[in-house]
Amino acid sequence: MPVVDNSGCKAALPEQEWRVGVVVPLDEDRGRGPNAVAELQALVRGEMEAVNDFIRERMASDVPMIPDLASHLINSGGKRLRPMLTIAASKMCGYQGKDHIKLAATVEFLHTATLLHDDVVDESDLRRGKETARMVWGNQASVLVGDFLLGRAFKLMVETKSLRALEIIADAASIIAEGEVMQLAAAKDTSTTEDAYMRVISAKTAALFAAASEIGAVIAQRDQTEAAALHSYGRNLGIAFQLVDDALDYGGRSAALGKNTGDDFREGKITLPVVLAYRRGNSEERAFWQRTLQQGERRDGDLGHAIELMQRHAALDDTIARAKHYGAIAIDALAIFPESPYRVALTKLVEFCINRNH
Amino acid sequence: MPVVDNSGCKAALPEQEWRVGVVVPLDEDRGRGPNAVAELQALVRGEMEAVNDFIRERMASDVPMIPDLASHLINSGGKRLRPMLTIAASKMCGYQGKDHIKLAATVEFLHTATLLHDDVVDESDLRRGKETARMVWGNQASVLVGDFLLGRAFKLMVETKSLRALEIIADAASIIAEGEVMQLAAAKDTSTTEDAYMRVISAKTAALFAAASEIGAVIAQRDQTEAAALHSYGRNLGIAFQLVDDALDYGGRSAALGKNTGDDFREGKITLPVVLAYRRGNSEERAFWQRTLQQGERRDGDLGHAIELMQRHAALDDTIARAKHYGAIAIDALAIFPESPYRVALTKLVEFCINRNH
Repeated sequence: MPVVDNSGCKAALPEQEWRVGVVVPLDEDRGRGPNAVAELQALVRGEMEAVNDFIRERMASDVPMIPDLASHLINSGGKRLRPMLTIAASKMCGYQGKDHIKLAATVEFLHTATLLHDDVVDESDLRRGKETARMVWGNQASVLVGDFLLGRAFKLMVETKSLRALEIIADAASIIAEGEVMQLAAAKDTSTTEDAYMRVISAKTAALFAAASEIGAVIAQRDQTEAAALHSYGRNLGIAFQLVDDALDYGGRSAALGKNTGDDFREGKITLPVVLAYRRGNSEERAFWQRTLQQGERRDGDLGHAIELMQRHAALDDTIARAKHYGAIAIDALAIFPESPYRVALTKLVEFCINRNH
Repeated sequence: MPVVDNSGCKAALPEQEWRVGVVVPLDEDRGRGPNAVAELQALVRGEMEAVNDFIRERMASDVPMIPDLASHLINSGGKRLRPMLTIAASKMCGYQGKDHIKLAATVEFLHTATLLHDDVVDESDLRRGKETARMVWGNQASVLVGDFLLGRAFKLMVETKSLRALEIIADAASIIAEGEVMQLAAAKDTSTTEDAYMRVISAKTAALFAAASEIGAVIAQRDQTEAAALHSYGRNLGIAFQLVDDALDYGGRSAALGKNTGDDFREGKITLPVVLAYRRGNSEERAFWQRTLQQGERRDGDLGHAIELMQRHAALDDTIARAKHYGAIAIDALAIFPESPYRVALTKLVEFCINRNH
């Protein structure tokens, strides 16, 4: 059985705890990805239906454009990963109340608002293989409906009266925006360092995963150790998730082209596979990255050449390897919780995020 | 001494209370406007300095573009009306703590975020006679820094731990965005009714004035009657303020052209002076409004002709008359509070908002 390379965190924990943490091999059996998330989905099915009903109810407005636009994205077949984290984390912590539904909906609203604004900022035409809201209703409406969802998110979370959860989510909201601005400021700069890129995704993606998980412990009134453990789980899972996303955008390890392949390339985004391929490349290759991403001059065949360069330098493999590193930390973070179906499912979720091919 | 026409609300109150409410003549002495706000400014000077320090402190970020862009707008010479409402209302209610500073900063952050997004949505080049942030840093950065300020606003208000104040501000944030979407959906429609327009400004402008005032009573732990009175004061002041803004954009009653005159016209915005002039105009005049605002075909001399049509139909005078109506309601709303320098200053603020010429 292959063992995950989590040497970075092994040292920090007694060997026994570390072994408890590593319950799933991350290296093999890519096909099991969907089953891994199915297990979590089955566990939280009833609650996720309640979250969906609640989202529909709180998306309502007398201004018809608001629910029309918001539901276009909310119903577009996202995996609802972030609200699922809140539900599963709170259940793992023994929470018995109803506020996890509201907080999960808050998290999804916040995420949706971010996506609406992202698509405007990135000038994206497609998301999840569907026209983006801005292509249907325009940039202006996307900005404003995003703001509406942010307002609603805060309204929802205030209803839970959990000041600590409020603080965590409000913090995440600033950090996400900070990450987006950081990304914009570094945009199209092929010489971005890996560290700088990690700072961006820690803020723009991982902060919400961390908050979504941590608030589960907070509403269950568990102690700071468990809240911190769930924060760490979410944060590292979020980083792993984003890195796999980055690799999948160039076809992943197998360079299998899917319907969204090349979106990042076409938008001139600097992601980890680019950072690695650029640094490892010769001067001719660097000129290619500068022309296509920095100057935005892309021609037919450039995407194929980009993938070729990434494969030549193992940039996709190594992006996945980095993702595994963070995934292993996420799994270790859960080790302090007693064995339970929720802990198993959250652990397998890491596997799913890393091995998924969509 | 001319008496305000507030016949609409006179009926609802015993005559004595009504008289108490009307302490300032709204009809005369336009020049007193700046003095009226100066009185309030003098009363809250120390606290507004604390608010400004706090804003500077909380605008900070490791991402330099964030404070650069945010301070461009925050330091651009706005009147800080909304945070002043929070400070003055809380002091009038006898508040002795420090949280009014945080809440006032929250209100200003929320307002600034809205302006940043507004300028993107309206494609505005100038605000307060200065280049808009989007012209300097681009639309993308303006959207994202707006989101950052929204996040910071929520973070700040959570620190006050006042769940009721949180609820009021979160509510206002949704309502503001709802109003903006409403306006976008009705944009460039010259047949917009006065009622529909009033719904838009009640949401997009008055909701924040109402929230900013009401939270003053809330943190001072005053009863629901006083909170409702301050809500009503803020709401009606906000409507009056917006209507005067609309009139000033066409030069106001005197049709005096200032540096911002014609901004709404150039952006094709439907405001109350347009609604009135369109309804009162003949078919030729309506064709003019449709061409210039609905179809956006504007030529040299069109702004002058628009102002001429507004004067022909008393659209600017009547917009100010409507503003006075709401101003009178705002003043009456304050009547339940005992006489104090704050009440006097808040009352005079209504006069300032109506009689100002900038």
